[in-house]
Amino acid sequence: METSVQSLTSAGNVLFILLGAVMILAMHGGFAFLEAGTVSKKNQVNAFQKILFDWSVTTLIYFFIGYVVAYGISLYSDTKLLTYDHGYEMVKFFFLTAFAAAVPAIISGGVVGRIKFFAQTIAAIFIAAIIYPFFEGLIWGRISFFQNWLTNIFGNSLHDFAGSVVVHSIGGWLALAGILILGPRRGRYDGTLDIRPSNIPFLALGSWILIVGWFGFNVMSAQKLTEISGLVAINSLFAMTAGAIGGLLFSKNDAGFTHNGALAGLVAICAGSDVVHPISAIIIGLVASFIFVKLFHWETEVLKIDDVLGVWPLHGINGTWGGIAAGIFGHKALGAVKELSLGAQIVGSLAAVLYALFLGFILYKIIDLIYGLRMSEQEQMIGSDLTYHRIEANPEETL
Amino acid sequence: METSVQSLTSAGNVLFILLGAVMILAMHGGFAFLEAGTVSKKNQVNAFQKILFDWSVTTLIYFFIGYVVAYGISLYSDTKLLTYDHGYEMVKFFFLTAFAAAVPAIISGGVVGRIKFFAQTIAAIFIAAIIYPFFEGLIWGRISFFQNWLTNIFGNSLHDFAGSVVVHSIGGWLALAGILILGPRRGRYDGTLDIRPSNIPFLALGSWILIVGWFGFNVMSAQKLTEISGLVAINSLFAMTAGAIGGLLFSKNDAGFTHNGALAGLVAICAGSDVVHPISAIIIGLVASFIFVKLFHWETEVLKIDDVLGVWPLHGINGTWGGIAAGIFGHKALGAVKELSLGAQIVGSLAAVLYALFLGFILYKIIDLIYGLRMSEQEQMIGSDLTYHRIEANPEETL
Amino acid sequence: METSVQSLTSAGNVLFILLGAVMILAMHGGFAFLEAGTVSKKNQVNAFQKILFDWSVTTLIYFFIGYVVAYGISLYSDTKLLTYDHGYEMVKFFFLTAFAAAVPAIISGGVVGRIKFFAQTIAAIFIAAIIYPFFEGLIWGRISFFQNWLTNIFGNSLHDFAGSVVVHSIGGWLALAGILILGPRRGRYDGTLDIRPSNIPFLALGSWILIVGWFGFNVMSAQKLTEISGLVAINSLFAMTAGAIGGLLFSKNDAGFTHNGALAGLVAICAGSDVVHPISAIIIGLVASFIFVKLFHWETEVLKIDDVLGVWPLHGINGTWGGIAAGIFGHKALGAVKELSLGAQIVGSLAAVLYALFLGFILYKIIDLIYGLRMSEQEQMIGSDLTYHRIEANPEETL
Repeated sequence: METSVQSLTSAGNVLFILLGAVMILAMHGGFAFLEAGTVSKKNQVNAFQKILFDWSVTTLIYFFIGYVVAYGISLYSDTKLLTYDHGYEMVKFFFLTAFAAAVPAIISGGVVGRIKFFAQTIAAIFIAAIIYPFFEGLIWGRISFFQNWLTNIFGNSLHDFAGSVVVHSIGGWLALAGILILGPRRGRYDGTLDIRPSNIPFLALGSWILIVGWFGFNVMSAQKLTEISGLVAINSLFAMTAGAIGGLLFSKNDAGFTHNGALAGLVAICAGSDVVHPISAIIIGLVASFIFVKLFHWETEVLKIDDVLGVWPLHGINGTWGGIAAGIFGHKALGAVKELSLGAQIVGSLAAVLYALFLGFILYKIIDLIYGLRMSEQEQMIGSDLTYHRIEANPEETL
Repeated sequence: METSVQSLTSAGNVLFILLGAVMILAMHGGFAFLEAGTVSKKNQVNAFQKILFDWSVTTLIYFFIGYVVAYGISLYSDTKLLTYDHGYEMVKFFFLTAFAAAVPAIISGGVVGRIKFFAQTIAAIFIAAIIYPFFEGLIWGRISFFQNWLTNIFGNSLHDFAGSVVVHSIGGWLALAGILILGPRRGRYDGTLDIRPSNIPFLALGSWILIVGWFGFNVMSAQKLTEISGLVAINSLFAMTAGAIGGLLFSKNDAGFTHNGALAGLVAICAGSDVVHPISAIIIGLVASFIFVKLFHWETEVLKIDDVLGVWPLHGINGTWGGIAAGIFGHKALGAVKELSLGAQIVGSLAAVLYALFLGFILYKIIDLIYGLRMSEQEQMIGSDLTYHRIEANPEETL
Repeated sequence: METSVQSLTSAGNVLFILLGAVMILAMHGGFAFLEAGTVSKKNQVNAFQKILFDWSVTTLIYFFIGYVVAYGISLYSDTKLLTYDHGYEMVKFFFLTAFAAAVPAIISGGVVGRIKFFAQTIAAIFIAAIIYPFFEGLIWGRISFFQNWLTNIFGNSLHDFAGSVVVHSIGGWLALAGILILGPRRGRYDGTLDIRPSNIPFLALGSWILIVGWFGFNVMSAQKLTEISGLVAINSLFAMTAGAIGGLLFSKNDAGFTHNGALAGLVAICAGSDVVHPISAIIIGLVASFIFVKLFHWETEVLKIDDVLGVWPLHGINGTWGGIAAGIFGHKALGAVKELSLGAQIVGSLAAVLYALFLGFILYKIIDLIYGLRMSEQEQMIGSDLTYHRIEANPEETL
């Protein structure tokens, strides 16, 4: 009897985290469609190709290097782990590699339209091997000094349940570095480039896939079935709906902002989704959509930073907002189920900004010097699809 | 040991109903694509925008008002419920709000092409706050007099396992009221409007998403993992396949009718999916597709009711058919696993028709008088996309 | 207590295999998009129509005939099975019918563009009733002589965990027979037919849906939650990523080969996914993508076999490779968790080739003689969409 309960529990844990892993895998299809729908049509094929290839490379690199960096576990060398506990360690890796692979996928939307195909892959390799796993190890893994230091000062470590800071802000702030070094697309600021999304249905499809998959991203961050929390689901739902509503209202009914507003809410709720009250989640999502709509405009029109999908405000700034928001609303007086430390949330979130910006500049600068980052003007004009993949999205339709 | 079994059971229940909730959430992406693929291209963006926005508004309204109406539970005021039993009550709400949000999504397909954007939202608000939850409370919730009355008369209450009556027929018959008050689209009956679907692949995508998600809609209506029934899955599968086959045969191989035929079968099987024999499910699905193909033609060509996606026959009439069919086939003599009352099924199903038609006329009439329902001829000609969202589905392709 | 553990276990098993079934159902939407994106635009509607209709017909035929052939269980005649053990037998059938229906869906991609609509359906009926279930029964079901014979000779039976041989190779080699009898599409080898994919985003969507659903195909092949294995998931993941990487590298960054390369890896890993070491899975996937890229070219350009989606190399040859690869890498000395017999894997895999080729020639030859297989030149020129479904994918866009 006891054996069968243990076996069922362990099997349930494997199923639980596997479902999360598969849902986040699906999100990568969502990243591809969101990007393909937002870029110009001559870069659609490239979006699909990049996301699938970078996912694939990232997964293997993270298996052999990154996972060891973050957690000290080399799954490939210990045959016992293949089947121990129904193979839980294998599926947990799958779940976490899906997180790791999200970072290059996030960046992809910012640098699209003028980055060289394999420059993006090289960046993904270093991100999955070192940059992301080291910070992951710092917050969630085996590298304990930073969280210990925060606990000593603030009485609490950085709480980042599902990665507002570790995944989204790292991705968004790395992207900012890449975007700045790359410079804007040819014609972006002289009016010769059509910057409208090429395909709203694809944008919406990408957004829907991401929305749905996000419930795997957040809920399965509990990592064990027996730790599942319905509160995480409801907070994700509410931040998403509030983000969509805000996106629509703040943009005066723009489809791109509405669908991305839902994502902004989801980025921001990750950190505190297991802690804050659902009404706080509504506020967090609403603010996130406001940040996205306003700062995307400020970034791309005032600062003239050519962030194609707005990944810096969407994932970077909103990831930081999510980390801080958990500190603001994570108090029992506000209906939260746990006490978090605002200080630790602020310092931890800002540490991620500095970390990502600093390493991002080094990473993209080195790639630029050694391999080259930027497609030629001619290549950009032809588009990434014909330049790299010798085919357009709809070949028959070309005259 | 006993604690760990209880905890595992409770965690399993949360996972179970969460999966259902997420699958129905995904169905809303399906509603969007089904609508976008069926309407003219100038209304595609609008389809996505409406579905996401109305989902979002509906969710919050149902949380604060509708759920209290139907079940008497105000989740926002009782902090204990946030984490009690792994947060089961929170996820159950998520599951049921996904049902509630289906009603405006169903209606959307009927009124598209000429309804004002926010008129639709206003209707969604009243539907999610009062109209749907009151009827839901009557059949599934805390308002017991109607089911008691049916039981007194027929020895059985209305059995509606997964909402043929409560969700689909309420949605479809409300839509009929809205469609009649709105009137047909500009040019619909003078031959100047192209009424062919704009995009069969989108229509098919929407249909596939709905088909797949429907297994969450039906199977997870058991609400507890320990109540799961494989029979529900197989009956859903068979009604769907029979509906697709019927849709193809009755329409002479038309893609729209085939993909909607699958949905017609699924609408009709909801009510009795936990009770009837799989062979009965085949018959129910086949009849449902016949109803859809024949009555869609009768509705739109003979009665000249401009129901764009055919939501009245698809969800309304077939929802009613599903309620009654459960009474016809829900007998052990026909291989069913439970005895249902044909009388209660007929009276309950017809009550929903009257309820929805009556309140639908009042609702849309009042909105029409106060805010206005109908887009101007000029706006319809330009299309909802440019009228409300200042962008077309594929901006680059416009000359 | 014991009752509640048993009930929870049994409910968990039903949920587990149901999730698998639904994920494979979703894969059929993926088959449809992969085909629609790869064929010419005038055959897109047809792709959707065929996949949904053949799925539906196959399901019912397999229920009434095929399942009895393979497992000796007639679910429709034993009312007790409807609810016994939470209806596990019903959902297991759903899972296995989703496997059976994959065979016609695989074939569809090879014969598209010139096969008569109902000729394909007739073939699907015989495949689902007899051809597939008999071989299934031989390897997994109640017909024991072949596996006994292998065991006598090699000390081990054919190990085919998730159907590299039973599903994919049977599908791919049947397709080869059909393709050869049908002959190439009009204009395929005189340069008058545009053979480029019509829609890369649809191709990518199909591929993503298949990739994601494949984790249900493979992991849920354990059939019981308590038998779940994380190793299966990780091996599927690695074969997929290696296949995508190989597809890109071997094709010089072609989007079709990259996305199909991921699928090639998944086809090949099915058989041994529960046994081999993850590093072996990487090699298996890499070889699979090499096979696909090189043999697709050899098949279609050298042998001039007009296999539109390349289903013979993708599913047929790679299915065979998967069966044999399990024998090559299924040894504890190579880190595998079980010992397999290379001899049994080779003989079993080749038996499937002969079986499918032989019956495929008979099947398609008879259909050709009695009903006719091939669309007229005129019909091919117009396209399957207008010929059979009286509508194009995007009617508004036609001048």
